[in-house]
Amino acid sequence: MTTHTPVAIVMGSQSDWETMRHAAETLAALDIAYDARIVSAHRTPERLFAFARGARDEGFKVIIAGAGGAAHLPGMVASLTPLPVFGVPVQSKALSGQDSLLSIVQMPAGIPVGTLAIGRAGAVNAALLAAAVLALSDTALAARLDDWRAAQSAAVAERPQDD
Amino acid sequence: MTTHTPVAIVMGSQSDWETMRHAAETLAALDIAYDARIVSAHRTPERLFAFARGARDEGFKVIIAGAGGAAHLPGMVASLTPLPVFGVPVQSKALSGQDSLLSIVQMPAGIPVGTLAIGRAGAVNAALLAAAVLALSDTALAARLDDWRAAQSAAVAERPQDD
Amino acid sequence: MTTHTPVAIVMGSQSDWETMRHAAETLAALDIAYDARIVSAHRTPERLFAFARGARDEGFKVIIAGAGGAAHLPGMVASLTPLPVFGVPVQSKALSGQDSLLSIVQMPAGIPVGTLAIGRAGAVNAALLAAAVLALSDTALAARLDDWRAAQSAAVAERPQDD
Amino acid sequence: MTTHTPVAIVMGSQSDWETMRHAAETLAALDIAYDARIVSAHRTPERLFAFARGARDEGFKVIIAGAGGAAHLPGMVASLTPLPVFGVPVQSKALSGQDSLLSIVQMPAGIPVGTLAIGRAGAVNAALLAAAVLALSDTALAARLDDWRAAQSAAVAERPQDD
Amino acid sequence: MTTHTPVAIVMGSQSDWETMRHAAETLAALDIAYDARIVSAHRTPERLFAFARGARDEGFKVIIAGAGGAAHLPGMVASLTPLPVFGVPVQSKALSGQDSLLSIVQMPAGIPVGTLAIGRAGAVNAALLAAAVLALSDTALAARLDDWRAAQSAAVAERPQDD
Amino acid sequence: MTTHTPVAIVMGSQSDWETMRHAAETLAALDIAYDARIVSAHRTPERLFAFARGARDEGFKVIIAGAGGAAHLPGMVASLTPLPVFGVPVQSKALSGQDSLLSIVQMPAGIPVGTLAIGRAGAVNAALLAAAVLALSDTALAARLDDWRAAQSAAVAERPQDD
Amino acid sequence: MTTHTPVAIVMGSQSDWETMRHAAETLAALDIAYDARIVSAHRTPERLFAFARGARDEGFKVIIAGAGGAAHLPGMVASLTPLPVFGVPVQSKALSGQDSLLSIVQMPAGIPVGTLAIGRAGAVNAALLAAAVLALSDTALAARLDDWRAAQSAAVAERPQDD
Amino acid sequence: MTTHTPVAIVMGSQSDWETMRHAAETLAALDIAYDARIVSAHRTPERLFAFARGARDEGFKVIIAGAGGAAHLPGMVASLTPLPVFGVPVQSKALSGQDSLLSIVQMPAGIPVGTLAIGRAGAVNAALLAAAVLALSDTALAARLDDWRAAQSAAVAERPQDD
Repeated sequence: MTTHTPVAIVMGSQSDWETMRHAAETLAALDIAYDARIVSAHRTPERLFAFARGARDEGFKVIIAGAGGAAHLPGMVASLTPLPVFGVPVQSKALSGQDSLLSIVQMPAGIPVGTLAIGRAGAVNAALLAAAVLALSDTALAARLDDWRAAQSAAVAERPQDD
Repeated sequence: MTTHTPVAIVMGSQSDWETMRHAAETLAALDIAYDARIVSAHRTPERLFAFARGARDEGFKVIIAGAGGAAHLPGMVASLTPLPVFGVPVQSKALSGQDSLLSIVQMPAGIPVGTLAIGRAGAVNAALLAAAVLALSDTALAARLDDWRAAQSAAVAERPQDD
Repeated sequence: MTTHTPVAIVMGSQSDWETMRHAAETLAALDIAYDARIVSAHRTPERLFAFARGARDEGFKVIIAGAGGAAHLPGMVASLTPLPVFGVPVQSKALSGQDSLLSIVQMPAGIPVGTLAIGRAGAVNAALLAAAVLALSDTALAARLDDWRAAQSAAVAERPQDD
Repeated sequence: MTTHTPVAIVMGSQSDWETMRHAAETLAALDIAYDARIVSAHRTPERLFAFARGARDEGFKVIIAGAGGAAHLPGMVASLTPLPVFGVPVQSKALSGQDSLLSIVQMPAGIPVGTLAIGRAGAVNAALLAAAVLALSDTALAARLDDWRAAQSAAVAERPQDD
Repeated sequence: MTTHTPVAIVMGSQSDWETMRHAAETLAALDIAYDARIVSAHRTPERLFAFARGARDEGFKVIIAGAGGAAHLPGMVASLTPLPVFGVPVQSKALSGQDSLLSIVQMPAGIPVGTLAIGRAGAVNAALLAAAVLALSDTALAARLDDWRAAQSAAVAERPQDD
Repeated sequence: MTTHTPVAIVMGSQSDWETMRHAAETLAALDIAYDARIVSAHRTPERLFAFARGARDEGFKVIIAGAGGAAHLPGMVASLTPLPVFGVPVQSKALSGQDSLLSIVQMPAGIPVGTLAIGRAGAVNAALLAAAVLALSDTALAARLDDWRAAQSAAVAERPQDD
Repeated sequence: MTTHTPVAIVMGSQSDWETMRHAAETLAALDIAYDARIVSAHRTPERLFAFARGARDEGFKVIIAGAGGAAHLPGMVASLTPLPVFGVPVQSKALSGQDSLLSIVQMPAGIPVGTLAIGRAGAVNAALLAAAVLALSDTALAARLDDWRAAQSAAVAERPQDD
Repeated sequence: MTTHTPVAIVMGSQSDWETMRHAAETLAALDIAYDARIVSAHRTPERLFAFARGARDEGFKVIIAGAGGAAHLPGMVASLTPLPVFGVPVQSKALSGQDSLLSIVQMPAGIPVGTLAIGRAGAVNAALLAAAVLALSDTALAARLDDWRAAQSAAVAERPQDD
């Protein structure tokens, strides 16, 4: 089974959605189709294997994976697919995402995960990085991304405002 | 296929053996059989799945897993077997094992890894903890472990010596 | 005096109960008897000694110990009993449990404490790890634990839901 | 002026080459052309602007940027080009790359840098991630990358060897 | 175009104003003119270049730059102007400004940023440090600064009061 | 049995003597008698109890306790004696004494340990702090300590020397 | 001018009193007289010098000093008096007292500060440590301290209570 | 007594000179006179007071202060002089300068220290920042600093060289 959905967003649990929805919304703003799924590396390892092993055949181009704490999902997905994987460290309760960040970014040589910032900013940026990748072979998307970036720049006020 | 080897020692790479051999030597000192294997969560995920899925049927009782950096091996093994898993954070180059420790110990509720100290001390202690578990149903081993602990206490000198 | 209660849950103070009750509830869900006590390493060192020295004779098989800050309880219990000890770092006020974690996990070679995650997840997992240990010689419990894990996996939704 | 070299490797100083050469060697092993340049965000900001502004027109597809300490190069490049940028935190002297990592990965929403591990592993993985991106539209490269990954898996020994 | 406004306060986003307004208020209390602008290193890199390149010609003497997370603004301004630059790490959400601090203070040899404390105290002190610099060639300001410091000392009560 | 030796120096292992000897040497320089012993909280808990419980009756006035890693010795001694206890965090291998420091200093309300710096400086200072305490009721020692401090001040050169 | 007040409590600002009042209350509970003052190392350096230089002549025996952030008060007091100084790291806003702790505890060899835990527990314990020091030459106080400790031990419940 | 030496370099001990000499050498390269002194906040507090109180009258314009560990020198100097003070965190043994950095940078509102990077880079940059301040009223120095910066930029090679 193949799909024309280029981006898969996977996350370790329902509670990660509060963070990862910002990836989804950013993709939607750029008119990029995505499929959002819960794939727990620890509670559903078979689902993890099935998803990651089959991701290329399903037609995905880029995978965005978010997780918190001992965040193994992004790295395990990356070990099971040749597709580019971008990881989002979800802010954890006790350690504020420092554990999530190190668990995702400190991958050994051989299996890369392109890691973004902790929390919402990282989720938005994972989507933008996926867009930048897809834009390499999609000139219409490249133009939309250029427009998005230009609009972002234009939206920065010249001077701070008191609230 | 079953075995009477109660402990499996798995590690992410050959370089981890310098640390994990201390687990092996401690088990040997307590006359506990073990099987030491390299199982890379990232470079050999199928081997990880096969090993962890089959560990109970192979006859193992306890699994000791060591890894460094974004150390996913202990947690992924724990997600795939109901056996008790003890994790050893191998000291990493840049972050001295802080990444290894957090990647192993900060598991989400549902999948436990009993984590030991960073480096050699952790490897020795993983073996001793495995021994304590096995001793619950092996009175001869319990006696050997008691002797080992008594000898350890007796070996502590009363006063420090200049070198 | 002996008991048929296999698990002792000890904690450094009443305030740790908010965390450690999750260990108790998890054991109860698996139909494992436990005894929960307050044993302060610092304020009641004699109670600590008496408890830990007598734990095996009381019939306990596994000890779960939770403490925060300069968390000495798990390590001191482990120094006084050959039983397996699992430590739960309670989230501390100023340092969010980083002090608790390091005080518990960084034990020297010779006296192991199998350490779980900071806070509630660690308490749940200490119970699950105790269950895994006890299940090695209790096939009925092994089946209950398998069921518990299967139910946990089955409860993971396929897709995230907006709230 | 355009080029058919798909990957630019930029680094903040000559001393970063000891780390970044591992990116270059990995790209070479995968038969991917690259151009390695020194672009100091702080000492040569005009060069930074000229390079990053012109990178897409030069024909680059992916940019790998390595820097240490207050590592601003990857983020500033990302602010000036729509191309995907992958950042490598070089291990710094006093803080072992913790400053490099945070300076690269904690980008605000809007400008992504896909960040790899500190040091050599990160440099290797930046190249592999670039390869994964390029392989999306280059089936020959995709096959080479699959072979590389398979060879890497096959090279993992079954058992640790004493040295 | 030149100005007689000696201090420029720049910040990465509107949200930094809540912190940086304390710099503005302190300058105002010392009767020092300032110009406060939003200059995002990442979202408006051209504005950054234009501002920093032209700051000396605009007549500014000292630049105060505040930013959070991967805080590149102070260092990039310092790379583009010979004027003294004082950096204020804004407290970030996940890492409480530890990322901001390291991204600002750990500049490589050659391009200095005089860094103040995280948050409000740092903003106040950036203004006071700018005042100390300007007072070197402005005896009236030197006297005002002396008075300000004397008043600050005099305002410290002898004994703590219950609230 | 009582003694006229006012200071006990205890340490967790022989390897701590390399650090703790600096406490001994500083006490000797101030002509203060001391007794140095190895008391492992984890490997010799009975010795710990016997020592700490009996320390006041033995005639000690102040206890200096040094330990590394999960450093429980100072706090456990403090829980078992009303004497003032000063703790020295020994520099540990993986975490450079950060674990030792937090394990010693973060004691709960009720049981104090006056903690000194990590390593040699902390050992010297524990001796000086013990001297300051003993000097409160020993005017000859107070004079020696004043002399020691004056000599220390006098020994600070006015200008740095090239080596 | 001399006094029979044995303990001085000094703190860097009025806002530290919320923490340091716990030292005062603990001293009061042990019937130990104290004098609480605000002495800002940074805003009132002359007051610091006058206080610390004169503390012994004023009749103080022990000094408790609390401060937050770049907490220089305890160390500077210790540099100016031969009396024992106990430091309390006040919990700071951005870094939760990690800056306060390191600024107080990491004193160089020669000038000791006996450092307690961050926040309220540290303030209570500074008072208890002062009491332990004073009790060395005050048997009535020694008895009160023994009673206080015994009462503290007796107040620890045997079992946790649901709230 | 006044001087025409505009920069004072002070450091806490002889051992800091290995770091601080880089400040001296950089000032010399820019033809700026300096006076280098050892002023220990802890071992020579009177010297600290005398120096800092008199610095403006001595004719100094800028003070560079370096110290390690609980580094109180820069902040205490800043509390005693209205001159701009730039602080250099010297790399400490156990904590690699993290303690030095926080002790210097986290000053409370009211007393600023412009803090540079840990170690040699910070020392060089303190000198450059002092030069930038002095150049505000010294056009010849401003020209020399411009030249120095231009030469620095020109010295950055275009491409990395194998060693």
